[in-house]
Amino acid sequence: MGPRCGSSARRTCRRAARRWSTVGASDGSFKRPNGAINGFQTGASSWVASNRGRDEGDADWAKALRSNLDATSTRRAHSAALGFDETEPVNPFTIVNDELSAISARMRQAVTSEVPALATAAEYFFKVGAEGKRMRPTVLLLMASALTDLSSGGADALSGARAASVSIDHAPAHEVPDDTRRRQQRLAEITELIHVASLLHDDVLDSAATRRGLRALNLEVGNKLAILAGDFLLARASVTLASLRNTEVIELLSRVLEHLVTGEVMQMTAKPERLMSFDHYFQKTYFKTASLIANSAKAIVLLGGHDTETASHAYDYGRHLGLAFQFQDDVLDFVGSGSVLGKPTLGDLKEGIATAPVLFAAEEHPSLSALIERRFKHVGDVELANDLVRRSDGIERTKALAREHSALAVKAVEALPAIDCPHALRCRKGLKELAHMAVRSEEHTSELQSLAGSR
Amino acid sequence: MGPRCGSSARRTCRRAARRWSTVGASDGSFKRPNGAINGFQTGASSWVASNRGRDEGDADWAKALRSNLDATSTRRAHSAALGFDETEPVNPFTIVNDELSAISARMRQAVTSEVPALATAAEYFFKVGAEGKRMRPTVLLLMASALTDLSSGGADALSGARAASVSIDHAPAHEVPDDTRRRQQRLAEITELIHVASLLHDDVLDSAATRRGLRALNLEVGNKLAILAGDFLLARASVTLASLRNTEVIELLSRVLEHLVTGEVMQMTAKPERLMSFDHYFQKTYFKTASLIANSAKAIVLLGGHDTETASHAYDYGRHLGLAFQFQDDVLDFVGSGSVLGKPTLGDLKEGIATAPVLFAAEEHPSLSALIERRFKHVGDVELANDLVRRSDGIERTKALAREHSALAVKAVEALPAIDCPHALRCRKGLKELAHMAVRSEEHTSELQSLAGSR
Repeated sequence: MGPRCGSSARRTCRRAARRWSTVGASDGSFKRPNGAINGFQTGASSWVASNRGRDEGDADWAKALRSNLDATSTRRAHSAALGFDETEPVNPFTIVNDELSAISARMRQAVTSEVPALATAAEYFFKVGAEGKRMRPTVLLLMASALTDLSSGGADALSGARAASVSIDHAPAHEVPDDTRRRQQRLAEITELIHVASLLHDDVLDSAATRRGLRALNLEVGNKLAILAGDFLLARASVTLASLRNTEVIELLSRVLEHLVTGEVMQMTAKPERLMSFDHYFQKTYFKTASLIANSAKAIVLLGGHDTETASHAYDYGRHLGLAFQFQDDVLDFVGSGSVLGKPTLGDLKEGIATAPVLFAAEEHPSLSALIERRFKHVGDVELANDLVRRSDGIERTKALAREHSALAVKAVEALPAIDCPHALRCRKGLKELAHMAVRSEEHTSELQSLAGSR
Repeated sequence: MGPRCGSSARRTCRRAARRWSTVGASDGSFKRPNGAINGFQTGASSWVASNRGRDEGDADWAKALRSNLDATSTRRAHSAALGFDETEPVNPFTIVNDELSAISARMRQAVTSEVPALATAAEYFFKVGAEGKRMRPTVLLLMASALTDLSSGGADALSGARAASVSIDHAPAHEVPDDTRRRQQRLAEITELIHVASLLHDDVLDSAATRRGLRALNLEVGNKLAILAGDFLLARASVTLASLRNTEVIELLSRVLEHLVTGEVMQMTAKPERLMSFDHYFQKTYFKTASLIANSAKAIVLLGGHDTETASHAYDYGRHLGLAFQFQDDVLDFVGSGSVLGKPTLGDLKEGIATAPVLFAAEEHPSLSALIERRFKHVGDVELANDLVRRSDGIERTKALAREHSALAVKAVEALPAIDCPHALRCRKGLKELAHMAVRSEEHTSELQSLAGSR
């Protein structure tokens, strides 16, 4: 699968692979300090394997990974003994599907039971068909399960947890949930509420007339109601967050709110000279896209009672996954089609935004600087910028950057503490599969793309 | 001072006074269960006294309060022994002025140190001259001090607390403050942040072109930036709130956010038949105006380590104060002048909003119903509604309602536990003075009016 590299892309795929192999070998984290078998290098290896057909000539890179591939067979045997076949294909969405449906039902119910007019507005994003893949809740529930040893409590614990996970939590948002899984589900819900609220506010006065393939809410019900609906979801997130009664988690999610706003403002109001800065772009991308998933992944692990080191691996996973998605999304704005992306190609340029492909291209074509600094406002700027990007390695370098972060996300999963529960192992594989999907163009549809920040 | 009652108003002033005296006598709370001297009935009595000139003929009412007035002289003697002269005039704003300045400086500094463009937008409301009287922080700091016995720790505690109160807290919003007063100051700051955020969002697409006498921010910097600036302040409030690490306080303020949104939406989207409902109007007024000050007054008392009964008196004070201000504000929209109010007279009618004077008037003039239900949208509706209101006792009944809640606010102060600290006594008198100011037309300028909800 992976991005289809033409001849001009081959160089960069190799570069990305080399970067990835450097990443894999840089700090020796492939080997657990305690000697425990880590079943999760397999996923990274198979991602590498799936890229090998397109990079066969890169012997150095393949060689560097050979010993890891050898070690993999031993781990597979261990996983199989636990009842988990590492070679089985995993659909990350299927694993948590029932639980996601229950959370969605709770969100819909919570929204619709309030002031009816507002419910209409807020529900707009929650109605069936519009809700996309619920990428964030999927990541979070997988992360929670990836660290939960269901087998340690025996079959009762397993069935109990499963039953709890798929029944709808009808308690009001402000009621303190008493079990860990419920608390984690609420965090997943909070994260989605914050995300949708930010979409609603972004929609207001945005030139884009559609989002998720539907008419944008602001056109349907008026800007003011869109603002209020966003505020309502933020307030609901805030109330639900308070009910978790965990001050560290509350702090993490509060910072995310600040990041979302700061990122949006950085994009809107940067001075011309800052628009040329890759640091500025990277920081903005973290604030707008990666902070929410990174910090909520950390939070859901803390709610699970795990230590701060484990929580920091979860943070790393979310951060790199979010960045990978956004970088790939920036690529697809140049190479995808409107029907696949759910928004017009070159949308970023048309909105005056210079993303990684343009910033890289400007290194080869200094004449791009003037266009970037005037936000492509002159007639012909968008077309000229697009032409210069295509006559540079900007797109390939951005793809490589996305793959680098995808690989780092995989590595973060591998750094999680060893666990002997087949369901947890399956969830870890699901997390890694999400990281792979982040950089596969053909799966980067408008639905998956919802992980990427809204502009 | 009190509202200047003309001959037509006299009846209603008496009605208000009777309501107030009923309130005062209804549950015997004028007498402390533990027999402690309550020095704070004096304020209520002097409020009554200041109204006596206009209500001399109401012998029943005066008689009902005579015994309380007699008891007052004993209490005054006790207060004087503590070094507090109950007859001295108190300016509630002066008492906390230094501390307010320090908080304002911290807010400005916190806002301006972030993304500069956003700072420009958010600071718009914090710059000198635009910040009004800071009514909410004043109420909160007075409430905090009204329950703090500085004398118990001796002179050192007094000077220490004073020094802390007027120095600027330069710690970042997410840092956990270590002393009680700092935590209370931060709560005052959070409350103002939430208030200003709600103003910013209300401004967007609002027909009103000015607020606080300045051009509305949305016209200056664009709607999108106004939304983001509001979001930024909410995010900053959220981060600061988390730093207080008190889950009950976090829950209280989170619910306020939900109330603000719900109230605004109730106003915007109510079905025609609901627009006629006094319950609907009352509920909306609580959500939009009173909830913030009520719940934050409760929160600041909890942060001070006081019991829940004391906190509930603080809640009652804030609730009744907020309602009194809003009802009086609704009156002034009919009788005030544009220059005094900072917004055009009949602004509510012009925005399609039926407030208490109209709802009362509709009881006398049923023809108003149709106008209310179509939100005064037909040509001539505003003028006709105004005419019918003036030919009814709607305005007088609303004034009476405002005074009723002012009196209940005073009563809530009197229900606070006895304290022997002169500064605390002064602050209690300041709180009562604020309740009186709420219903005095001539002090209900645009600055004071900032306590009333934003429309």
